[in-house]
Amino acid sequence: MVQLSEAQATDIIDTAQAAADAARAVTLRYFRGTDLNTASKRADFDPVTVADREAERVMREIISQRRPDDAILGEEHGATAGTSGLTWVLDPIDGTRGFISGTPTWGVLIAVRDESRALYGIIDQPYIGERFAGGFGAATLTGPRGTQDLGPKTNTDLDDALIFTTFPEVGTPADGAGFRALAERCKLTRYGMDCYAYALLAAGQIDLVVEAGLQSYDILGPLAVIEAAGGIVTDWKGGSAMDGGRVIAAANAGIHAKALEILSKH
Amino acid sequence: MVQLSEAQATDIIDTAQAAADAARAVTLRYFRGTDLNTASKRADFDPVTVADREAERVMREIISQRRPDDAILGEEHGATAGTSGLTWVLDPIDGTRGFISGTPTWGVLIAVRDESRALYGIIDQPYIGERFAGGFGAATLTGPRGTQDLGPKTNTDLDDALIFTTFPEVGTPADGAGFRALAERCKLTRYGMDCYAYALLAAGQIDLVVEAGLQSYDILGPLAVIEAAGGIVTDWKGGSAMDGGRVIAAANAGIHAKALEILSKH
Repeated sequence: MVQLSEAQATDIIDTAQAAADAARAVTLRYFRGTDLNTASKRADFDPVTVADREAERVMREIISQRRPDDAILGEEHGATAGTSGLTWVLDPIDGTRGFISGTPTWGVLIAVRDESRALYGIIDQPYIGERFAGGFGAATLTGPRGTQDLGPKTNTDLDDALIFTTFPEVGTPADGAGFRALAERCKLTRYGMDCYAYALLAAGQIDLVVEAGLQSYDILGPLAVIEAAGGIVTDWKGGSAMDGGRVIAAANAGIHAKALEILSKH
Repeated sequence: MVQLSEAQATDIIDTAQAAADAARAVTLRYFRGTDLNTASKRADFDPVTVADREAERVMREIISQRRPDDAILGEEHGATAGTSGLTWVLDPIDGTRGFISGTPTWGVLIAVRDESRALYGIIDQPYIGERFAGGFGAATLTGPRGTQDLGPKTNTDLDDALIFTTFPEVGTPADGAGFRALAERCKLTRYGMDCYAYALLAAGQIDLVVEAGLQSYDILGPLAVIEAAGGIVTDWKGGSAMDGGRVIAAANAGIHAKALEILSKH
């Protein structure tokens, strides 16, 4: 594990916030515009916009100028090596399908990790003006109502749980079967929120987010925010979720254990 | 049809805006709070919050004081008769499930109708601070970026269409089959936005919203906004959608016709 001084922690936080500010300005310039110049990376429609590429570029510039020894891994522009043992993991627009539809629940994801931990993360929602940030002993939402501490729910039964995922099919047919086995036990299932669902969990609004087929850059920012707020993020067997794949985020240990009991059978 | 002078139209607009302002203040007081005192109207979980009831109450007070001759129909407090031939149709929180989950895509819906037409409507989103309004020759979005005219997309092929619905099951199994037959022909399907999807259609972001099992108060506000903006809202056979049921909102006549061809078989 990389050991950091308080000054180093402050520098990481300041750099992450500066990167989020820059990405917010870029993405807002293109959001709900008519000339997004969308292109497909894959045949099955994964829109990548100019905003996506440009937002990652400005974040990488800020990070590499301020912290030249750190590595960077981004969804759009790939990996840049470093020597510090720290890696910045960037998803300039998580929820590009939401972005091109004009919905306000996509986000900019930023995380800083060493080989074993997510140290700091941000989920930023530019249009609403909400920034969920967590790490180094604090987890906060700064938004229309000022800054407040994040804190997941502490005592929900599975029967009363609100569970979110982005796509109803979740992932493969097996992934979907696992999700549905769990969702059937919950009170309410909602779809379509992308990274915003993780932010709602950190803020104490919902109990579970369960997804599959994630990349590292999809989950590291949310994972850092939720862990700093007191929640739990693992894979469906209780192992590390830092590399993506099948992921469960839970508000507390009790509901995490109950949900894993169902998911781990799939 | 009720004939209205310009002064009467202005009075209706002012009254609707005042009602939306009052409902915004009430709903924001409760949104993301911890003491929502939710109760179930039906066994299958239809949360109704204190916010819901109180927001309708303040809207009814404003309308009945300013326009005592108009009838009022609200989701929470039922029908009040009138003599003018005009009825106010209110849904204080459309998307209560989203509301209790903390998502920002629920809305306050207000509509004014006579026996055959929706004259004016509002879709208000208090947390984001967006108000979509339409009728009497204008359709506007007032929000974080000021006020701008609404206008649906004019030339989408079904192959390129973005289609929204709130619940993946849509309604009955037959409703769901109709939806899926259409959605399979579209480029992208998204879920979970409640009334916000209709607002996105009016704003030129998406092409189709298809739902079933709606009540009059779920659709009249969106219908008024979309029609004023230049879009089309009907039932799945092309008839009036003012009483709810199976509803399709389409950005333009071309895509409406293509979608009806598929939906009308179900």
